[in-house]
Amino acid sequence: MPDSAFTWPVTVYIEDTDAGGIVFYANYLRFMERARTEWVRSLGFPRLERIDECLLFVVHRATLTYHHPARLDDCLLITVNLIRLGRIYMVFEQLVVDTTSGRVLVEGEITVACVSKKEFKPKRLPERLTKAIQQGTVS
Amino acid sequence: MPDSAFTWPVTVYIEDTDAGGIVFYANYLRFMERARTEWVRSLGFPRLERIDECLLFVVHRATLTYHHPARLDDCLLITVNLIRLGRIYMVFEQLVVDTTSGRVLVEGEITVACVSKKEFKPKRLPERLTKAIQQGTVS
Amino acid sequence: MPDSAFTWPVTVYIEDTDAGGIVFYANYLRFMERARTEWVRSLGFPRLERIDECLLFVVHRATLTYHHPARLDDCLLITVNLIRLGRIYMVFEQLVVDTTSGRVLVEGEITVACVSKKEFKPKRLPERLTKAIQQGTVS
Amino acid sequence: MPDSAFTWPVTVYIEDTDAGGIVFYANYLRFMERARTEWVRSLGFPRLERIDECLLFVVHRATLTYHHPARLDDCLLITVNLIRLGRIYMVFEQLVVDTTSGRVLVEGEITVACVSKKEFKPKRLPERLTKAIQQGTVS
Repeated sequence: MPDSAFTWPVTVYIEDTDAGGIVFYANYLRFMERARTEWVRSLGFPRLERIDECLLFVVHRATLTYHHPARLDDCLLITVNLIRLGRIYMVFEQLVVDTTSGRVLVEGEITVACVSKKEFKPKRLPERLTKAIQQGTVS
Repeated sequence: MPDSAFTWPVTVYIEDTDAGGIVFYANYLRFMERARTEWVRSLGFPRLERIDECLLFVVHRATLTYHHPARLDDCLLITVNLIRLGRIYMVFEQLVVDTTSGRVLVEGEITVACVSKKEFKPKRLPERLTKAIQQGTVS
Repeated sequence: MPDSAFTWPVTVYIEDTDAGGIVFYANYLRFMERARTEWVRSLGFPRLERIDECLLFVVHRATLTYHHPARLDDCLLITVNLIRLGRIYMVFEQLVVDTTSGRVLVEGEITVACVSKKEFKPKRLPERLTKAIQQGTVS
Repeated sequence: MPDSAFTWPVTVYIEDTDAGGIVFYANYLRFMERARTEWVRSLGFPRLERIDECLLFVVHRATLTYHHPARLDDCLLITVNLIRLGRIYMVFEQLVVDTTSGRVLVEGEITVACVSKKEFKPKRLPERLTKAIQQGTVS
């Protein structure tokens, strides 16, 4: 787990599991989204969309690799590590770590794109955001 | 199962289940909503909100009684029976029936209210809807 | 909000919302389940099923009344108030409260039944549980 | 859309959407899973796990690329195209196609691994499955 990463705790509830007795694999995308949302808050923004009402931030690509399953009642840490800051995209590396064993259960690479609210056309990331990322907080 | 009821088939997929090996109980609300949506289509409306752009139709009360669990791969029938048509509300009785055994698994009573889109204030059900319900189809 | 109630905070994430811009109404059952799970932990049990491996605790009836919608980013408090402790059932009154306005958004009455794991037959609530509830903690 | 692919229709209901007014991006994994489940049925197996009770089939890697959003009431086709059949893995290419416009909305590459039920250790795909895949049906 990179030292520099933002982390967010998630507890596994019955709603997150499936009949295999493990977390339903699509739900890790929900856990990772929660962590990114809280990372944005840690920068000082209540929500990315509040920076500019004409913009939306959408997931453009997601790659998940599943190493070990999480189970009911597990306490997880979700990491958020911005590994690329483009003109239009942010690419995050995110891990799902089991806090008891320290094992990495799932690895994700999530590309979030900035688009116009009306037509879903690519748009430049707002300067207030890129500045806050470089400074670690909104100024 | 009332003869007159509209029915809609639902197959149980892994996404619907939980670690108890059964359908997660909140998901029956999703199944019942799918059936009501298709009942509206059977009346000739693509969607209730299309009747009047200023109106929303929201669930105001839901009561579910769980008799037996549904399991992975089960083929279910969801019934839609309008049991009360008020000025502002529609009350539906809905059953979840296992098609193999014929058993009623879940009973629901769902009250759907008509409200204004902006302020969520109660509004009269549109006449085109009540007429279509009385005639069994949009005229 | 009853003074005596156990409460659990829930933040509304994008995963919880629907195209109406509000929390999808089935998801309040998930929020209430999280709060009941944490209430059980506050009594000293990691999980009800751990008390006796032959028992399951299932929702037998749920009634939800929706007063106002919750929205993206809202901070909610979910209350847990045990209003009836039967031989086989526990009945909970649960509220969803908006922490900013203090308004009650949703009221729920949830009946949780104790059943055998194998046949889903009603079973007496384990004495360790009823004792812990009366004492406010596991002894 | 490859001519040879198995396809499965999915209608977008309110449960599938989020406050952005579009399908919540994690839910395409659910749609793709439904289509793969029905592809397995089209081969003549009620479920992969029924071939050998000691085996589980789990998603090991998932890559999704989102081109255009699906919206409420959209009628989608989900394709299933097996592009690699390994000893332990099956790799599927799956598309989400809007039936009205014919546009590809989402592309997915999903790797499903065969593991032992007890320890989640990699296991050889059962011969009955690989044979049925080669013949297009169970013999």
